[in-house]
Amino acid sequence: MRTIKLTLAYDGSGYHGFQKQPHGETIQNVVDDFLGKVCGEPIATAGSGRTDAGVHALEQVVSFSTNGRIPCANIMRASQNMLPQDIVILHAEEIGEDFHARYSALWKQYGYRVVVKDELDPFLVKYAWLLHEQPNVEDMNEAAKLLLGKHDFSAFRSSGSVDSDPVRTIYRAEWQSADKGELHFTIAGDGFLYHMVRNIVWSLVQVGIGKRTIEEFGAELNSKRCAYLNSPAPACGLYLEHVEYDNAFPSDTIV
Amino acid sequence: MRTIKLTLAYDGSGYHGFQKQPHGETIQNVVDDFLGKVCGEPIATAGSGRTDAGVHALEQVVSFSTNGRIPCANIMRASQNMLPQDIVILHAEEIGEDFHARYSALWKQYGYRVVVKDELDPFLVKYAWLLHEQPNVEDMNEAAKLLLGKHDFSAFRSSGSVDSDPVRTIYRAEWQSADKGELHFTIAGDGFLYHMVRNIVWSLVQVGIGKRTIEEFGAELNSKRCAYLNSPAPACGLYLEHVEYDNAFPSDTIV
Repeated sequence: MRTIKLTLAYDGSGYHGFQKQPHGETIQNVVDDFLGKVCGEPIATAGSGRTDAGVHALEQVVSFSTNGRIPCANIMRASQNMLPQDIVILHAEEIGEDFHARYSALWKQYGYRVVVKDELDPFLVKYAWLLHEQPNVEDMNEAAKLLLGKHDFSAFRSSGSVDSDPVRTIYRAEWQSADKGELHFTIAGDGFLYHMVRNIVWSLVQVGIGKRTIEEFGAELNSKRCAYLNSPAPACGLYLEHVEYDNAFPSDTIV
Repeated sequence: MRTIKLTLAYDGSGYHGFQKQPHGETIQNVVDDFLGKVCGEPIATAGSGRTDAGVHALEQVVSFSTNGRIPCANIMRASQNMLPQDIVILHAEEIGEDFHARYSALWKQYGYRVVVKDELDPFLVKYAWLLHEQPNVEDMNEAAKLLLGKHDFSAFRSSGSVDSDPVRTIYRAEWQSADKGELHFTIAGDGFLYHMVRNIVWSLVQVGIGKRTIEEFGAELNSKRCAYLNSPAPACGLYLEHVEYDNAFPSDTIV
């Protein structure tokens, strides 16, 4: 039995999320079908975690076991013709049998893309959250700093969360501005609860546009329950950017 | 009876082209359905021209007649909630009844986006033609210059073309390079035959990657028939950029 690790990138806008479903096209359905064909037996991948419908991945990791003998390079080659072009296998490697895409992950990084723009833009709606007013990035970064370290993140999980332990450690949480109204939020941590990143982004943007104070954001975090009226920021702006298995989050870059 | 001119932008990746069809979702189906609701009577728009499945528009113009009394500002407002977010009405105005989106057009401009990149990219496949080798932009521009002026463009039209007259005048045809492997082709003219821009882009790229000489490109143009093995460049890279009704193409910028 071989264990294989695949690193994927995908445009999630055309899919009903990552997680396998009996009906509806999901990333995992498509990838498992493809792997079943090239491995010559049914394949059930494990993902590093789910991404919701419309969420994208610059790097998502899956692992699976197979008796198939196809070399990893051939999986890559076959995928270029057999997978839809909005799902790409970036890397394939054989790995120790104790590797598991979810349980072996040390930390993950997500990005969230906001674009500040007056007009509607048909080319951005699937790839960013369009805001019509400019948030205060300094205030958002002040509030984001409160997320760093080990906290009970119950306040930022949506109902439907299946994780029993709501404690996570956040290593990085930072907004950066770029040209053309682009704002990019980066958040890295040892794990994330259901809708946690999108709920955090929504609350930070409330701080940025003056609808909530930094103190209220801190109180929300510390309340350990959903005490504020929140809604997750749109799925289209969220990108799974990296899943790390080998190295602890570099301590000199913890901000 | 009022005549109304709408300027649209759309991401064409989710549609079966612009042109109304009895089955399948097209831009015109969606827009006419929306206008029928806000005008209170069936609406049949005329477009400045068709765009194929997967082709995008930064500016497409449609016109229609209606007895409905809804102000143009309200059409704009209603569209923000009633149209899918990948179709946007940029501008709506009442105009003289002799205006027709197709027959009143003086010239049009298309853009074509190529990205030179070694790796596959799931986020570009719907929005650009990915090339794995760097074409010679100077050679492509030398060849593109041959397109300027009045020519019989039969060599660059695909079968299925319904235009009886294959003569068109091209005012601008130029490649520009930008960062990150981006190449942008701009072509403006008094009109375009079926697949003409995509066939031209394909042939120019053949010149750029050394599979055809500039002289062969010129011979192809002058042959006035499809003498070379061509295939249109992918639809996903093509953008209708502008349709002009008021001013002739500025002669000082004809390049």
